[in-house]
Amino acid sequence: MRFIKFGVCELEALKVPIFSKITIIGVGLVGGSLALAARASGVVSKIIGVGRNSENLKQALDMGAIDGFETDAAAGVSGSDLVVLAGPVGMFNKIAVEIRPHLKAGCLVTDVGSVKGDLVLKLESIMPEGVSFIGGHPIAGGSSSGAAFARADLFEGARFILTPTTQTPRDELSRLQEFWGRLGSRVSLMDPYEHDKVFAAVSHLPHLVAYCLVNTVADRDEVIRNAGRGFLDTTRIASSPPDIWCDIFSMNKNNVLYSLSRFEEALSDLKALIECSDFESLKSELTKAKEARDRLADS
Amino acid sequence: MRFIKFGVCELEALKVPIFSKITIIGVGLVGGSLALAARASGVVSKIIGVGRNSENLKQALDMGAIDGFETDAAAGVSGSDLVVLAGPVGMFNKIAVEIRPHLKAGCLVTDVGSVKGDLVLKLESIMPEGVSFIGGHPIAGGSSSGAAFARADLFEGARFILTPTTQTPRDELSRLQEFWGRLGSRVSLMDPYEHDKVFAAVSHLPHLVAYCLVNTVADRDEVIRNAGRGFLDTTRIASSPPDIWCDIFSMNKNNVLYSLSRFEEALSDLKALIECSDFESLKSELTKAKEARDRLADS
Repeated sequence: MRFIKFGVCELEALKVPIFSKITIIGVGLVGGSLALAARASGVVSKIIGVGRNSENLKQALDMGAIDGFETDAAAGVSGSDLVVLAGPVGMFNKIAVEIRPHLKAGCLVTDVGSVKGDLVLKLESIMPEGVSFIGGHPIAGGSSSGAAFARADLFEGARFILTPTTQTPRDELSRLQEFWGRLGSRVSLMDPYEHDKVFAAVSHLPHLVAYCLVNTVADRDEVIRNAGRGFLDTTRIASSPPDIWCDIFSMNKNNVLYSLSRFEEALSDLKALIECSDFESLKSELTKAKEARDRLADS
Repeated sequence: MRFIKFGVCELEALKVPIFSKITIIGVGLVGGSLALAARASGVVSKIIGVGRNSENLKQALDMGAIDGFETDAAAGVSGSDLVVLAGPVGMFNKIAVEIRPHLKAGCLVTDVGSVKGDLVLKLESIMPEGVSFIGGHPIAGGSSSGAAFARADLFEGARFILTPTTQTPRDELSRLQEFWGRLGSRVSLMDPYEHDKVFAAVSHLPHLVAYCLVNTVADRDEVIRNAGRGFLDTTRIASSPPDIWCDIFSMNKNNVLYSLSRFEEALSDLKALIECSDFESLKSELTKAKEARDRLADS
């Protein structure tokens, strides 16, 4: 944990909670990691988990991630200072409507979903008087799901994007920035619509491509059993949950289709170079890709 | 190393060399790892490296991977019992012609290239009387190149494919199977043309797709700087050497184009489902991919 680098006084100062009680709706890999990280960093006093799966919630309780849980979202948000929507992004609208009457005045609602855009404005509009919604997206996660895979250091050093709007109160935004910063995230701000364009290209498209690469060989046993490291790396994210990714492709449909078209054009260009055996031009294209990829930090 | 599981007598028996002197032409990641593994397992008595880059060869010598080196292939193969072509696959034809007059009778020539098919028959036909060529392909490697990245355990537990033809002497094939088996590989046999169809789908296509995914965002800084774990995994193999991959796309052109067309069709089908918002059918497709991917062993 990051506190190891601070002295005792600074550590105590940092341990001052930013929110007294928080409720995390959806205690999976991301929600569970948020609970562990929030507890370890002392940014909250009490953590309530909400979900439909009691077994998963009990596991989160046993792990010490949460202090208690509810299977009813309305009951779970009662008296909370911060509510985090951490389940499938396709459920956020429904949940927001459900919890609306039960949010206390001054409560801040946020999320950790992969789609922003219209959804942020919609959730913002659902909030009652005195309650703000601010969209958030951690650039962290994994293809495993469930509280069992939660890690207190999931957000350590990872980027976190907040997507404020013209309606967002600046003091609430500052609190949320401080909250994620204290969990070790590198927080930056982005327009919700710009967010969806960027992540269609850099995340949603690669997921669609990975699923498709697997399906190209899935029904050919004599082919897929020869898969080596390259195939495994390239298709790792095809193990991601289909229901969550269908929601994302649905909710960011236009940007995903745009990115997909760009990709299809680029692939068609490479195909044309191979067809006419222009391997010098192909080498230039591959070199451009290699140089861009080599520039990205990796682990 | 695998010998740890054997008793001393069995260990000694296993240490009996299969080849007295071997020459590795191209001492990079794979060639250098072969040298380290061959030495550690005692399958050879003396290892000569051949390459154009003296610095790299000196490094291999300093690492104890090779006993000596030559920058001239003809000099390097003199007196060798096994010659392994381990440089770029596009150079094999030229090198085979160059070394032909200098191979000793009874020598076995093999390779570790990613393309087989016609190349295997061509190299077989170049060999002089009393010398056999047998194609080989380790399903192991990485995007880093150079002897500096060589590892004695690169082939440990990895698949290795030998592609004999009707001309291949069975005793030579057995020796080569034993050789790679003693380096820890799981050796299997495949027809050279079948090999190229399979690896077009499971390796060459994913490389092309990874290069293309990077190029779709390479010139958009505001996009690529948001790359997360998923993008990094999916595009890791886009750091592979462009010259080697141009050779592979060139030498396996028809199979690569066929696999690419299948992929384009599959992607176009997914696109159509998104366009008409048929997310139930999309979920079925993604689930099929997830299940196939989950079945693959991973590390």
